[in-house]
Amino acid sequence: MIEQVENDIKNLVHQIDYSNVTRLFDALSGGKRLRAKLVLKIAASSENSVRLAAIIELIHAASLLHDDVIDEASVRRGVPSVNATEDSKTAVMLGDVLYSKAFSELVHFESAIASCIAHSVTSLSVGEMMDVAMASHFNSDADAYLNMLYLKTATLMEAAATAAALLAQKDATAYGVYGKNLGLSFQIIDDILDIVSDEATLGKPAMNDFVEGKCTLPYIYLYDALNRRDKERLKDCHARELAPGEGAWIRARMEEHHSIEKAYALARKLSDEAITSVKDDRELVAVIETMMKRRY
Amino acid sequence: MIEQVENDIKNLVHQIDYSNVTRLFDALSGGKRLRAKLVLKIAASSENSVRLAAIIELIHAASLLHDDVIDEASVRRGVPSVNATEDSKTAVMLGDVLYSKAFSELVHFESAIASCIAHSVTSLSVGEMMDVAMASHFNSDADAYLNMLYLKTATLMEAAATAAALLAQKDATAYGVYGKNLGLSFQIIDDILDIVSDEATLGKPAMNDFVEGKCTLPYIYLYDALNRRDKERLKDCHARELAPGEGAWIRARMEEHHSIEKAYALARKLSDEAITSVKDDRELVAVIETMMKRRY
Repeated sequence: MIEQVENDIKNLVHQIDYSNVTRLFDALSGGKRLRAKLVLKIAASSENSVRLAAIIELIHAASLLHDDVIDEASVRRGVPSVNATEDSKTAVMLGDVLYSKAFSELVHFESAIASCIAHSVTSLSVGEMMDVAMASHFNSDADAYLNMLYLKTATLMEAAATAAALLAQKDATAYGVYGKNLGLSFQIIDDILDIVSDEATLGKPAMNDFVEGKCTLPYIYLYDALNRRDKERLKDCHARELAPGEGAWIRARMEEHHSIEKAYALARKLSDEAITSVKDDRELVAVIETMMKRRY
Repeated sequence: MIEQVENDIKNLVHQIDYSNVTRLFDALSGGKRLRAKLVLKIAASSENSVRLAAIIELIHAASLLHDDVIDEASVRRGVPSVNATEDSKTAVMLGDVLYSKAFSELVHFESAIASCIAHSVTSLSVGEMMDVAMASHFNSDADAYLNMLYLKTATLMEAAATAAALLAQKDATAYGVYGKNLGLSFQIIDDILDIVSDEATLGKPAMNDFVEGKCTLPYIYLYDALNRRDKERLKDCHARELAPGEGAWIRARMEEHHSIEKAYALARKLSDEAITSVKDDRELVAVIETMMKRRY
């Protein structure tokens, strides 16, 4: 059924009727289509669920295009980003085209569905602004970090699950919780992998988040546990290239203070809540367990 | 009634509930609110028409934020642009927030209204891509230029007029023609003023469009009228700083070949069609006549 979504995405992009858009879009990597699969697993198979999944993937693609401009990222899903192969303005314009095409299609859905998806896009844009603002200093506030993570990463998954449940006349609140917690857990695991994986697995240097100024959960937990002198030492390493000894020092302190385990425990707790929320849905339990076990 | 729109815009931005957004938005110049006024003149005064006008102004503001990033413009409506005072990524993010907030509100309108506004945003984004693509070479195709102008500048006015007419249960097609032609005429006059006005009036050097690679209608008409040698001379001047003698030469040739008059005649023809389309609406006739007479 994911093939139907791929076809629908192609059709929607083709409807835009501008060869430059088709060419640029075709060169993008589609990624795991996690949000589309989520919609298809929750909603019964129908023309509407396929279209909803396609719309959400267009929104996700648009947000990634703009993210890469904002983060000046040169690689996305293993291929060079549009801002790298073309330029930033092309990535901005292509993102705008995809966003607006998605919204054009969204208005044909019932108001509750359209509203929850549209609202999540505002949240993710605000979350992106918060992410950038937070990277300008060493943020040690776990709640502020998790709120940003929710807005930036989890709201679209929450909206996808909620909208799919509305479409299938299932319990929208319960599935919304699942989507939200899946999104949060996914990102926390991502943040952990950035620290514990090697460059070959990540496709970028390890601890890149911290170098870019992003103080993810393990760093926040570590900061909390350190004595005053080591707190200063950690802060001093923030948002700059790390010497090999510094990276090793941070990882050793994280091991000592179980910072990774604490972050993992939160992801586990959120996943358990997600599972409880949709307890009868074995497929969704499998999705979250696979996600929790991933190593890249 | 435009004050109600201003208040509604403020409320919508306030609902986004992020201080950085409010601060950045408050620093923007609201501009002439031409689209909001158009909605209010066509639709009867109501909560819905005020909200529709506010939504369209948010979309317009978002599109200008992204335009300025794409064109690397440092001034907008007489004040420094957000990409100049902050940076490009802030302008991209703020634009995304405003676009998505506008769409979130749009879904509460009936599907035909929401659809025509959303669709126009896709058109304007595609138009922006075409504008950039066209500036990379000397475009002498008037139809291609006018199609780009329609998409980039006129579709949102067309959609504003159509949506307002739908809201007021007036003839949507007739008002749509008015909006489209108003938008096209507006831009053609803008293109003429860029050539015939002085720097003090424009707030930027005269003939800046051509320097930036934009081959507007008077240049296309001039190219068409020139002999082969002068065609080459004109093309040679394209998309670079002009020596004073070169600017004077282009203007003299335009005078000789009535290029400005031809462009003005097209704006007049489009305006007349707009007037015919809404023949009973004296206020809308006044809007287009004022626009045609403007000198800045």
